[in-house]
Amino acid sequence: MERRDFVKKSTIIGAGITILNTNPLTQKSNLNLGVIGVGARGLGHLGLLLRRTDVTVTAICDIDEFTLNSAAKMVDKLGKKQPKVYKGSDEAYKELINDKNVDAVIIATPWHWHVPMAVEAMQKGKAVGVEVCGSTSVEECWQLVRAYETTKTPIMFLENVCYRRDIMSVLNMVRKDVFGELTHLQGGYEHDLREVKLNSGTQWYGGGVEFGEKGMSEARWRTSHSVSRNADLYPTHGVGPIMTMTNINRGNRFTHLTSMSSKGIGLHNHIVNHPKGGKDHPNAKVKFELGDIVTTMIRTQNDETVLLTHDTNLPRPYSLGFRVQGAKGIWMDINDSIYVEGKGKSHEWSPAKPMRDEYDHPLWKKYEKDATGAGHGGMDFFVINAFLECLKNNEPMPLDVYDAATMKVITSLSEESIAKGSQPVVFPDFTNGRWITRKPIFALDDRY
Amino acid sequence: MERRDFVKKSTIIGAGITILNTNPLTQKSNLNLGVIGVGARGLGHLGLLLRRTDVTVTAICDIDEFTLNSAAKMVDKLGKKQPKVYKGSDEAYKELINDKNVDAVIIATPWHWHVPMAVEAMQKGKAVGVEVCGSTSVEECWQLVRAYETTKTPIMFLENVCYRRDIMSVLNMVRKDVFGELTHLQGGYEHDLREVKLNSGTQWYGGGVEFGEKGMSEARWRTSHSVSRNADLYPTHGVGPIMTMTNINRGNRFTHLTSMSSKGIGLHNHIVNHPKGGKDHPNAKVKFELGDIVTTMIRTQNDETVLLTHDTNLPRPYSLGFRVQGAKGIWMDINDSIYVEGKGKSHEWSPAKPMRDEYDHPLWKKYEKDATGAGHGGMDFFVINAFLECLKNNEPMPLDVYDAATMKVITSLSEESIAKGSQPVVFPDFTNGRWITRKPIFALDDRY
Repeated sequence: MERRDFVKKSTIIGAGITILNTNPLTQKSNLNLGVIGVGARGLGHLGLLLRRTDVTVTAICDIDEFTLNSAAKMVDKLGKKQPKVYKGSDEAYKELINDKNVDAVIIATPWHWHVPMAVEAMQKGKAVGVEVCGSTSVEECWQLVRAYETTKTPIMFLENVCYRRDIMSVLNMVRKDVFGELTHLQGGYEHDLREVKLNSGTQWYGGGVEFGEKGMSEARWRTSHSVSRNADLYPTHGVGPIMTMTNINRGNRFTHLTSMSSKGIGLHNHIVNHPKGGKDHPNAKVKFELGDIVTTMIRTQNDETVLLTHDTNLPRPYSLGFRVQGAKGIWMDINDSIYVEGKGKSHEWSPAKPMRDEYDHPLWKKYEKDATGAGHGGMDFFVINAFLECLKNNEPMPLDVYDAATMKVITSLSEESIAKGSQPVVFPDFTNGRWITRKPIFALDDRY
Repeated sequence: MERRDFVKKSTIIGAGITILNTNPLTQKSNLNLGVIGVGARGLGHLGLLLRRTDVTVTAICDIDEFTLNSAAKMVDKLGKKQPKVYKGSDEAYKELINDKNVDAVIIATPWHWHVPMAVEAMQKGKAVGVEVCGSTSVEECWQLVRAYETTKTPIMFLENVCYRRDIMSVLNMVRKDVFGELTHLQGGYEHDLREVKLNSGTQWYGGGVEFGEKGMSEARWRTSHSVSRNADLYPTHGVGPIMTMTNINRGNRFTHLTSMSSKGIGLHNHIVNHPKGGKDHPNAKVKFELGDIVTTMIRTQNDETVLLTHDTNLPRPYSLGFRVQGAKGIWMDINDSIYVEGKGKSHEWSPAKPMRDEYDHPLWKKYEKDATGAGHGGMDFFVINAFLECLKNNEPMPLDVYDAATMKVITSLSEESIAKGSQPVVFPDFTNGRWITRKPIFALDDRY
């Protein structure tokens, strides 16, 4: 087993013993990246990586020929050298991880593969940037934490919404005390995914009501979670920004949550009402466990409350439903409005834009041009950039293994709470008490 | 004890026995009203009653000379005969109830008086229109129900937001299946009440940080609930419209809730930061039990979820935060936007106004002119009008004793849930199973 020590430069341990930097990545001007999973999401990352000058994509892995072809075309189009391709079986990723020309991996595979792949990569000393999803179990989150603590291989949780421009501006406001002491935050994932979860099998979105083996792209695997699980299946986009604003795992932590689920009718209705579906379509018999609206209330050690909404099966406009509220003011994204005591008209909303511009985060000011054209309004540039820059500079990841475990575990905890009739469920402390002394590091300046 | 039977005209009981109408009020062209409590809220009702031609205000009651004077001036200004005044003690209301020139009472007193006064009025056969508030206990709600079931004296819960124009339009949309089968609804009471709960003692709002004996108007009594209780103290404005839309107590019911409370810092900060306050002000030592944000999730028998927010101690614009969501679409009031599948642009909000106008409720179309100038944007006209018209026509009250008990009890149930760390708490069924067969009656047409 190849083993590397990823420690901070000149870390001082105990009575002044200095350990020199032994991270080989910091001695490289160019990182060799492997991308595991080049489907819809992985292709986006591949495009960003191919455009960078500090990265060579040396390997990719997928089991789907169609998407491997898409990746090859993208590489050609951008005039880069074709990476080595690992494919042919669910285990092919192991060969990629073992490839000596791979320093670090990006994992953008179906959800249930994230942890096994990340754990194996960490164990082989390959730094990990892993895509977001909810957990399949609490134990799975501990596996991730244990693998990191055993190997100290860097791992970054690619929660891109933490880097959304308005979110980072509001984070800046939070840190500059615009809202005063925080009391309540909201977020969620309110996104009509019916045409993602159900499609024709020949196109990525919609055109039919198939899923599983007959579906394409995410419908092949993601939909099964809606069939079998009633939980906040996708908490990270809502909760990630809330965690950076409330310093979760860094002076604060989530203590417990309770979740409640509505009826689940959206996916069934979509199947029955679709021109390619109907009440006699085989999928009309499928019982979807997932409630259409899953609401979760979380409490923090510092006595804030957090509200998350998961809403993916009904016709609705996209919204992450953010709200940040404190002793001095409140911001909401649904009306993009703000209220700060003593500013603007009393008891009236003001448009948030002037303040969002005023508090634009230094990172966005610096990298605005680089981010242009990157996925999801530029967020994807930042999350990948942070991962790579931290690797090169041997700095701790701004969204680390504890953040990953904390965000992911909400899925399993909400599942348990719903199964128990909305009983409160306690959060594991993945830091084992270190949240008390750990300091915030996310986006403190314009570096990454 | 004066005893009246308020039964429906020609009600047929059992095997065809017809009971003739014995409600004396329906034989009157003019109702004699007593108003118990003519403070800020009661004066509003008094003004509406004095303007009506089908009502004589024969008696008023209060313990505060200042507001009794305000009432007398209002009567003079409107050229009406001065009502008999009951005053001088907390028990004066009993004399008003016993006044033979009073047919019905409006109760707009401090919260803890609502139930004892309403119960006594019902027992004396005086019809009751009682203002909204949360319960002090579950038992209190049962007392209200028992008094009604024993006496059958009509009682209307004066939940005015049920009559808000946009709310009634959306109710109309719900009934016309615009949103399809409902899945999730939100509402609340998000209103910066700091200057209501804390004032100078010489003005109604603000100007100081006094409450209790040194406060004026609501600060004299309402603030004590924020000192002593951690609960959704004021659920009715948010939940009332949700109940009419989901047919609670009429084919549906609330089964259980869970509540969570944030830290409570808003009122303390206001005292400390106020020019008339400061850290040495006696009230700076007061510990307020009420969390600034109290969030409550409710589940219904028909598998909808309901989310309520109570937010009254922080600087923020007023909002009741409504959201109505179903299988076919969603409306929110914070951005006054709507999305209905197949209408407007896909995945994009549309302004709600055109549809709100299209579905304007028949009641508002009919009474728009009468409502103009009435309190709270006209809502107050409708809720008082419904009470009086139902009395005159001997019809069942559209917001009845079961609705009152169900809305009010949320306060006590949320208090229990919070005290137990967000444990779910079961709703009493105040109808004792009759919710299964009771039919919706609220605002079915343009009558009331």
